[in-house]
Amino acid sequence: MIQTPASTSGLTLDILRSAGTLSRTDLAERTGLTAATMTNVVRRLMDAGLVHDAGRLQQGRGQPRRMLALSPTAWYAVGVQLDRTTTTVVVVDFTGAQVTHVGLRGTGSRGPEDSVRAVVAHVRDLIASANIPRERILGLGLATHGPQDRERGMLLTSEPTPDWLEYPLSSALSSQLGLPVLLENDATAAAIGVQRVGVLPTDTFGLIYLANGVGGAVVVGGEPYRGRASNAVEIGHLPLTGGGRPCVCGNVGCVQAEGGPAATVEQALTDASLVERLALVGSGDDILADFERLARASRAGDESAIALLARSGAQIGEAAVALVNLFDLDTVVLSGPALRTAGSLYLPLVDDALQKRWLSRTLARPQVLITDNLDTAAATGAALEVLRSTPIDR
Amino acid sequence: MIQTPASTSGLTLDILRSAGTLSRTDLAERTGLTAATMTNVVRRLMDAGLVHDAGRLQQGRGQPRRMLALSPTAWYAVGVQLDRTTTTVVVVDFTGAQVTHVGLRGTGSRGPEDSVRAVVAHVRDLIASANIPRERILGLGLATHGPQDRERGMLLTSEPTPDWLEYPLSSALSSQLGLPVLLENDATAAAIGVQRVGVLPTDTFGLIYLANGVGGAVVVGGEPYRGRASNAVEIGHLPLTGGGRPCVCGNVGCVQAEGGPAATVEQALTDASLVERLALVGSGDDILADFERLARASRAGDESAIALLARSGAQIGEAAVALVNLFDLDTVVLSGPALRTAGSLYLPLVDDALQKRWLSRTLARPQVLITDNLDTAAATGAALEVLRSTPIDR
Repeated sequence: MIQTPASTSGLTLDILRSAGTLSRTDLAERTGLTAATMTNVVRRLMDAGLVHDAGRLQQGRGQPRRMLALSPTAWYAVGVQLDRTTTTVVVVDFTGAQVTHVGLRGTGSRGPEDSVRAVVAHVRDLIASANIPRERILGLGLATHGPQDRERGMLLTSEPTPDWLEYPLSSALSSQLGLPVLLENDATAAAIGVQRVGVLPTDTFGLIYLANGVGGAVVVGGEPYRGRASNAVEIGHLPLTGGGRPCVCGNVGCVQAEGGPAATVEQALTDASLVERLALVGSGDDILADFERLARASRAGDESAIALLARSGAQIGEAAVALVNLFDLDTVVLSGPALRTAGSLYLPLVDDALQKRWLSRTLARPQVLITDNLDTAAATGAALEVLRSTPIDR
Repeated sequence: MIQTPASTSGLTLDILRSAGTLSRTDLAERTGLTAATMTNVVRRLMDAGLVHDAGRLQQGRGQPRRMLALSPTAWYAVGVQLDRTTTTVVVVDFTGAQVTHVGLRGTGSRGPEDSVRAVVAHVRDLIASANIPRERILGLGLATHGPQDRERGMLLTSEPTPDWLEYPLSSALSSQLGLPVLLENDATAAAIGVQRVGVLPTDTFGLIYLANGVGGAVVVGGEPYRGRASNAVEIGHLPLTGGGRPCVCGNVGCVQAEGGPAATVEQALTDASLVERLALVGSGDDILADFERLARASRAGDESAIALLARSGAQIGEAAVALVNLFDLDTVVLSGPALRTAGSLYLPLVDDALQKRWLSRTLARPQVLITDNLDTAAATGAALEVLRSTPIDR
């Protein structure tokens, strides 16, 4: 397993990655280190080829400040987001910028061995086509659904097929690719992916990840909340409205089972006229494509589609309220591939639920946001987490 | 506001407080500091009179190790837990051991000014009767319900009466007592109070606090999860079973409104025969006394009381499941004054819900525990949090 060290060097790299360029003085302020210590840290990072001089910045009348930035080509990392309906592979450079990416079909109902073989082939192709020096790739971050045993690099679920349960996913990928592999919850990875790109107005927020299912993540002060074994924040498995629909987790009435994308498609499939009108496919491997058809129909004014999406949006709104009230947050980010078209439908519904039902009414009102990297956030976040394990002294 | 510094000295004191006695080598291991640095830290703490030599310990054939312990009389702190039905005041010494405590009636429907005056009188009496040197009292920790603005030391709720909303609670108490005051959520304080006494098998757990209402807290690696502004973890305000009972928070169907102690008493009061049989008082200020009567009747076999407590226990069980699944925990502690008699009734119900409905089935099974400081945990935790602000260099 890749460790993510909390060293001063690592912290400095994290801060530079999210800020872009900063002076030594800025870095000393943000890390709380003395100017002298920061000068030493920066020297080591420059000697290691990780940081370079990015010119001078004149502000006001003072001395121009020498600015620093990460060296983009120092290291690269691969990020893979994998689930039943989609596979996304990204390569990021050392600054976290995306070098290349590809979106592919998901695992479908295939077993883990076939799926790993497919991922390995895609990753090899992408690295070759992007002309990235193999020895500069630090590792691969794999974002997928939970529950997981992050340390052992395996899933603790029989979804989509029983042989995924405790299959040695990370080690199989690692040995076939010859790269260290870091397993990550997809919602947590997406939170890292939206946070480290630096467009959010805060580094403390909750995230609801909509793919087939409904995942959740919480970031406080820039760090993901991980709980005991990185299986937080299963917001999709809260039974919030007293419904009785059975969930894949074994419980009933979970947000995911009542109003997640797959559940919404399932409800649509019981309406024969809607199925015909929208040409819904109705296969488990095409859930996101069917959900996309529903979202488009809803935006085009189809009454049945509008009702289904509104019901789903209300459930996601309840989940957002629970996230805000339980984790004490004022920002909820919506992310995930299901939101390509549906995002603009969910945004006002979630906002409405939050304004009506959050608890601390005289503190800052909660807000809901959507970022534009819906398809790649999770893969990017997994790759960014790998970059945090950069060796400083070799 | 009292700051809780994360310095190496502070960390060393925290570790000694929870462990009792340790050698310098133990302390170096647990803090990750070098032996040389730890020797310096310990010297400073001894010079400041905070730590003293606690004799030698021989283990096996090696050199006997010189053990260290906190000096009990170095500092004291006052802890107050305050709500509508109970006031508990404790004084702890520097090791966190309870020197004295008193349990009193709560605020009832009185306003904040009267309540502050009463607390001030009780604290003065207790300090005087315990003969504690006034200049060694570091401050007062005040544990009460949320939502709070911890930094400004005020409540963000109109419960129990509208004039509590944004009343300057901490500063009023502070100026009348001449002590710094730290405001704390009661459930979080209780979690600190059960964790730092060192009897829990883990330093990562969730806590459900049952007083009038239902509060929640999460501790990860010994530190409370605080979220954005210390108003996590409002587990009592999750609507988990689709019920429609209005809650004080303005929403409907919350765990607290459906199955908390006050809600359970309210349901009992609609049963005239039960009211007569148990001599229920039915006043808002006597909720815990009535709840205690219900719990005793349930244990004595009263069918109506059994049904009411079972319904409440099932709701608390759902809350425990949500806590475990959302925050990724394997230990739930039940605490709070409502559990004096009811604790043994809730324990199997909560355990049952956890075994049936937790998510990560192949990781460690969740467990539920009750500690024995039900009445004083919150006040003690608030006092312990004050001790973390010990000045080292004066």
